[in-house]
Amino acid sequence: MQFRDFSDLPACGRLRELAADPPDLTRPGFLSPERIRSCCISSCGFDLLYATQRVDERVLDGLQELADQAGIIDAFLAMKAGAVLNRIEGCESENRQVLHTASRDVFSDPPLAEEASARAREQLERLRTFLDDLDQGRITNHRGESFHTMIQVGIGGSDLGPRALYLALASLRRSGRRACFIANVDPDDAASVLDGLDLSRTLVNVVSKSGTTLETRTNEQLVREALVRSGLEPSRHLLAVTGKGSPMDDPSRYRATFHMFDYIGGRYSATSMVGGVTLGFALGYETFVELLRGAHAMDVAAEERDIRRNIPLMMAMLGIWNHNFLGMPTVAVLPYSQALARFPAHLQQCDMESNGKSITRQGAPVRWQTGPVVWGEPGTNGQHAFYQLLHQGTEIVPAEFIGLRNSQYGVDQLVAGTTSQQKLVANMLAQSLALAMGRPDDNPARRFAGNRPSLLLLADRLTARTMGTLLALYEHKIVFQGFCWNINSFDQEGVQLGKVLAGRLLETMAAAEAGDGGAEDDSPESAMLVAAGML
Amino acid sequence: MQFRDFSDLPACGRLRELAADPPDLTRPGFLSPERIRSCCISSCGFDLLYATQRVDERVLDGLQELADQAGIIDAFLAMKAGAVLNRIEGCESENRQVLHTASRDVFSDPPLAEEASARAREQLERLRTFLDDLDQGRITNHRGESFHTMIQVGIGGSDLGPRALYLALASLRRSGRRACFIANVDPDDAASVLDGLDLSRTLVNVVSKSGTTLETRTNEQLVREALVRSGLEPSRHLLAVTGKGSPMDDPSRYRATFHMFDYIGGRYSATSMVGGVTLGFALGYETFVELLRGAHAMDVAAEERDIRRNIPLMMAMLGIWNHNFLGMPTVAVLPYSQALARFPAHLQQCDMESNGKSITRQGAPVRWQTGPVVWGEPGTNGQHAFYQLLHQGTEIVPAEFIGLRNSQYGVDQLVAGTTSQQKLVANMLAQSLALAMGRPDDNPARRFAGNRPSLLLLADRLTARTMGTLLALYEHKIVFQGFCWNINSFDQEGVQLGKVLAGRLLETMAAAEAGDGGAEDDSPESAMLVAAGML
Repeated sequence: MQFRDFSDLPACGRLRELAADPPDLTRPGFLSPERIRSCCISSCGFDLLYATQRVDERVLDGLQELADQAGIIDAFLAMKAGAVLNRIEGCESENRQVLHTASRDVFSDPPLAEEASARAREQLERLRTFLDDLDQGRITNHRGESFHTMIQVGIGGSDLGPRALYLALASLRRSGRRACFIANVDPDDAASVLDGLDLSRTLVNVVSKSGTTLETRTNEQLVREALVRSGLEPSRHLLAVTGKGSPMDDPSRYRATFHMFDYIGGRYSATSMVGGVTLGFALGYETFVELLRGAHAMDVAAEERDIRRNIPLMMAMLGIWNHNFLGMPTVAVLPYSQALARFPAHLQQCDMESNGKSITRQGAPVRWQTGPVVWGEPGTNGQHAFYQLLHQGTEIVPAEFIGLRNSQYGVDQLVAGTTSQQKLVANMLAQSLALAMGRPDDNPARRFAGNRPSLLLLADRLTARTMGTLLALYEHKIVFQGFCWNINSFDQEGVQLGKVLAGRLLETMAAAEAGDGGAEDDSPESAMLVAAGML
Repeated sequence: MQFRDFSDLPACGRLRELAADPPDLTRPGFLSPERIRSCCISSCGFDLLYATQRVDERVLDGLQELADQAGIIDAFLAMKAGAVLNRIEGCESENRQVLHTASRDVFSDPPLAEEASARAREQLERLRTFLDDLDQGRITNHRGESFHTMIQVGIGGSDLGPRALYLALASLRRSGRRACFIANVDPDDAASVLDGLDLSRTLVNVVSKSGTTLETRTNEQLVREALVRSGLEPSRHLLAVTGKGSPMDDPSRYRATFHMFDYIGGRYSATSMVGGVTLGFALGYETFVELLRGAHAMDVAAEERDIRRNIPLMMAMLGIWNHNFLGMPTVAVLPYSQALARFPAHLQQCDMESNGKSITRQGAPVRWQTGPVVWGEPGTNGQHAFYQLLHQGTEIVPAEFIGLRNSQYGVDQLVAGTTSQQKLVANMLAQSLALAMGRPDDNPARRFAGNRPSLLLLADRLTARTMGTLLALYEHKIVFQGFCWNINSFDQEGVQLGKVLAGRLLETMAAAEAGDGGAEDDSPESAMLVAAGML
């Protein structure tokens, strides 16, 4: 792989020129019906509508050149085939393959990365057997009763993705089954989840690749103690999802163990056993496989080199246009679907942890902006909350709307000639138009400057397959941007320093607790503890 | 009131000079124990630690001058006494008082705004009686059974604040009582809340000041139909919180009605009956009064003119320093408390809807940045998600950490000499230090530039009183910034255009549904519907 610095790519110069006078969405006639209908990409059940972006054919040509010059699709193909892309040249780094796509490349024969996909198939088979044993009553509690609840204990990538997917597909829950999640080291998190739960009918799925994550091990111990207090045998209730050979990979302590692999980063792991065990339990094995099917379809579609035919590539390049050339520091992800309420939180991690970087793949400081701040809440709720700033604030926020043409539950009503679902989608389209077109008014308080970019992603209904496709779509958008910026989107060295300092603070606190003198030294750490009233 | 343009205030010039060479947090010795201990404000049970901001005495003096020159505290005192501050001079505008503080000025005699506080007392008395009637079995379902669940139907300010407070204080729930919330017009939101609920034991609290909010009226109708389908009489189960004389102010349709007043904006209404009814039901009347007590204490403390002794004023001015002078476009609110999981979402509304404005109080375009993008998730979860970008990304995000020294549930365990709660606080302190100090390293991937500002808010425990104080603290921070920027923080004209356009789209859809020709005209709206596959 040959990666070049972002700012050295010839297309960057061209795009900078175009950015000096970008298309104006408020120009009369600019947002024509022809433009709206032609700025569309349909792929894997999704439509991307991007007429309300500040681009024209010249800008799109420039973005195509940029994608080509950065070698985005070549890098993506290499990634899927097993290239060691999680590395910084010439520095000590993780030096790993990046193979989350292999976890769903279980439908093609032969798969692109044969060994990784074979392992994924093996884990899927174990999961199928395990779930079958539950269904057939071969795995029960000590009274021979079935389990109805699964608690997933994990944090970060072992929490946000699976949680977002579970919420998204909760309408598909198997009768009598449910999942809940404990992530935070805050003891109140576990306490509120355990509050009122029948532990005797509960399985606890502990998820940590390294098997050493402090929060997860602490919460595991907390749950083990709760089980013991209820007179239950922890090893009958606990499952583990962890890396082979990790400290948690110990069959004597867990009823069943599933494996994850070092070539799948936490934030890209929802389609591995990290998501599989809990989703399979709560939604059924077939539903999880449908999710994989949807993701795999997008994995294949995303190989397309033409940005006008590749949804994640177009979204990646539009994001770069807004961020690097038009100077917008954030992106709002706004799903018009309550089921997608936590999908923005998952994307926040996936995007910001991947692309919040300051050095190139060659270890040099970047001379351009990398990942934006990603945030968002579902519509129409947001319309009654922060949309004021989107329309009339001084910060320009590009918006990514996600909508579904039909509801999940199918409970709806006709009020004033339209259904609630139609109102939901109409509101989303209206927001996109309002942001773009603005409106003059004699009253300055009611004036809308417009010219604010957004895009729309639409699918027919939120099914397991749709959700898998949407998940993969955003994963690829993020990875494509990382390739373009010439950064390593797959490490997370930035979380280390906080851990080190927290360790030092805890040592000081433990010493004080043990009466070994509050050891008030002259470090900022001690002073912080004193000022915070913790010593 | 005399408001001057932000950029015309003399202190702005001085601060711009200082911002050219701001204090460097990574300078050896800068973050000294003395600095850490002296950069503290204690007030109403909270400690603000701001040593890790890029300020020194000169900057603080400049910010004090700015606050004085902008007349922030005078405006605040006028607001609390009933001045008509929700207006744009010379333009048609709401022209209202701003009296959310009166809703908790029920402990002093005489209160600052006598009429508004008298009304607040009257509503509180009605609430007390109503809750008493529930307790004494004078209000029951048709079978004489008590109600155990309350669904709050509302959106925006009638949802986010009450929901955040309920989650924060759920550990104080009255035995057998609980609350849930329906906000989104997405029919799946209501369906998933109603799923499995015993409606016969449920009260439904419909909250809308205008009595016309589309989402809320739609969801009210949906819930009414669900009640009828269950053989229940809706008027026995429904309550209303609405403005006097609104279309919802109709005793024949609701079992009880509570009033809100036009001088309390939705996003500032959690301490009025908008929060009172549901919180009083679920947590008890006395708990709600404690919340008011906490808020009122901060309402009084925030009158202090010295920024070094006024927490919300200091936070407002530090925010302006970071946003307007150091050029940081967002703020992250990071509570190290799972109970505060939705508090950032409430602040996102309160802040962005208040200060996402582009014109001055005189109706002229602003020539400076107004409100930032506000976002956040609880720690330590965020550490495993987006903190990578906070530490090593190219966007600089000022962080506001919120911590509690003790847990709510009191279920905790000692691991390696410290409790989970201590780990939680230690992690928060460590993050603040890591962001500020950074760390050199030979490996560029493990290098931390540091010099990233943050602040810490600490209290002993999350009680109803603490929560009230925290709520008011942030309300005042936001209002102070609005006064300083010379904008109207109390209207929300920016939400209108989207509503108008959504209405037009829905008319077209209804016409198509009714077969009156898809009426494919040449408007962007019609083209959008066609492109989206909705016609």
